Amino acid sequence: MGQDLLGVLFGDPFAVMNTIGLLAFALVGSSKAIREEFDLLGITVVGLAMAFAGGATRDLLVTRVPLALQSPIEIALGLLGVGLAIALSVVLTAPDTHPITLVADAIGLAAFTTTGAIVATDAGVSAFGVVAIATINAVGGGAFADILLDRSPFILFDDFYASCAVLGGSTYFLAGVVGVTGSTAAGLCAAVTVLTRLAAVTR
Amino acid sequence: MGQDLLGVLFGDPFAVMNTIGLLAFALVGSSKAIREEFDLLGITVVGLAMAFAGGATRDLLVTRVPLALQSPIEIALGLLGVGLAIALSVVLTAPDTHPITLVADAIGLAAFTTTGAIVATDAGVSAFGVVAIATINAVGGGAFADILLDRSPFILFDDFYASCAVLGGSTYFLAGVVGVTGSTAAGLCAAVTVLTRLAAVTR
Amino acid sequence: MGQDLLGVLFGDPFAVMNTIGLLAFALVGSSKAIREEFDLLGITVVGLAMAFAGGATRDLLVTRVPLALQSPIEIALGLLGVGLAIALSVVLTAPDTHPITLVADAIGLAAFTTTGAIVATDAGVSAFGVVAIATINAVGGGAFADILLDRSPFILFDDFYASCAVLGGSTYFLAGVVGVTGSTAAGLCAAVTVLTRLAAVTR
Repeated sequence: MGQDLLGVLFGDPFAVMNTIGLLAFALVGSSKAIREEFDLLGITVVGLAMAFAGGATRDLLVTRVPLALQSPIEIALGLLGVGLAIALSVVLTAPDTHPITLVADAIGLAAFTTTGAIVATDAGVSAFGVVAIATINAVGGGAFADILLDRSPFILFDDFYASCAVLGGSTYFLAGVVGVTGSTAAGLCAAVTVLTRLAAVTR
Repeated sequence: MGQDLLGVLFGDPFAVMNTIGLLAFALVGSSKAIREEFDLLGITVVGLAMAFAGGATRDLLVTRVPLALQSPIEIALGLLGVGLAIALSVVLTAPDTHPITLVADAIGLAAFTTTGAIVATDAGVSAFGVVAIATINAVGGGAFADILLDRSPFILFDDFYASCAVLGGSTYFLAGVVGVTGSTAAGLCAAVTVLTRLAAVTR
Repeated sequence: MGQDLLGVLFGDPFAVMNTIGLLAFALVGSSKAIREEFDLLGITVVGLAMAFAGGATRDLLVTRVPLALQSPIEIALGLLGVGLAIALSVVLTAPDTHPITLVADAIGLAAFTTTGAIVATDAGVSAFGVVAIATINAVGGGAFADILLDRSPFILFDDFYASCAVLGGSTYFLAGVVGVTGSTAAGLCAAVTVLTRLAAVTR
């Protein structure tokens, strides 16, 4: 874990974005389960499902064992996000619609769009593949959480949510085309995704 | 792309069948979305989902990165099929039930049964594996499109649809047992699938 | 098949548990389909789906081609389980709720928890990965069968069903930590799972 923390501090963009995304999406998923009055097990399952489902699908698409099953840090970060949601629910009355949760969701969306774009680019897929995997990484967790919560996952496509990930993933690919890579490309991808999403939410 | 076109012209049976299947299923999926009055984005998403979902599942089952994410030609062919559906919808009043679409669906079913049988055989799976992967390749796209259109995907099993793929995949395997391979086996597989399907439709 | 039988007799724990699980879950899945008055094809499809879906998902998560598509023995065992269910349905009036079926379900759950834990440990995943893959292997078949039967698969989480697999998978991992491996660990894992499940059913 020490090595990974160093990776975060010294700027491995995948590690930074993955850490942010896991915390944010576990928090958001658990908040939704708290709103639906799930018990502690249910809150944990939905939080972890939202944190891990997108990245696991991404890993399967590039044919590697899902990171969430390999690294103990992943599960620790997910559980930390679940704990944060429970702490927030003590303080707030409607945690799932509170601005903190909406912002966390936008941040998680941006972080996972970026991890998806990084992994897809490293796997050498086509331009369409980069955008598709970035979007699946970003939206997969929320879609799976919605299924567990017995909501339709397709609202994600109505509400300018998946589209933000498409824009972010396209930004990452285009940045690479013009020679911008690494942390700068990751930052651009995350910025485009989070800003378009926050614009849609606050509209 | 030049090389792939040569491959098509000089008879790589996978390339021929894959090209036909992508065009046909993108056309059929988009026509269904047009009938449901989806917007342009929805029409494109359903068309591409129908064209790619079966092959992506096939590729995951033999643990390789989905072709649709690797090759720019795949997405170009899918978008061409979507465009054809939009052009048809201008001319026809009910494009999703028009004979052109029903025939295109039967042709796509046959083409993807064949690509599935080819890939499964190359991957060295069992006889059951060849038939299962051929059927999943053929039926997966339509099932996923039905989910996106909020229909039950299981009608595919009622309506002598998946059964045609089972017959075609079995034909490909049995052809190999008696020593018939390559383009001839692919042609037999496609012929059995498309003819049984057209017989069921026109019954 | 001779070699595999020798493997079973001389104690390859994966082969033993896999054989038991395939037979038991094909029997249970087919019994449910018989209760819903499915036709012979439907009974076979649901039985094979229940027998194979969990293991196929397990194999995809560790990125290998699903065993069910590679080994002809797998499909033979699945069909044998389907045949047993049909034979039982002639003798019993409500085969899906008969104690034989409930016990078979608990045995299948235990057997597949164990195969999942073995495969996950061999793949070198984390502690969380071992428990997650063991649980998915155990519960995946029943969940998929429930979807085919148009029931909600989430009842599996209400009813102290998945939890038994979590306990069994944890037992397998902890056994390894204290140096107990191979057939002994497999036996402990299966015993914990089947006993907790039978306790829940007979409560």
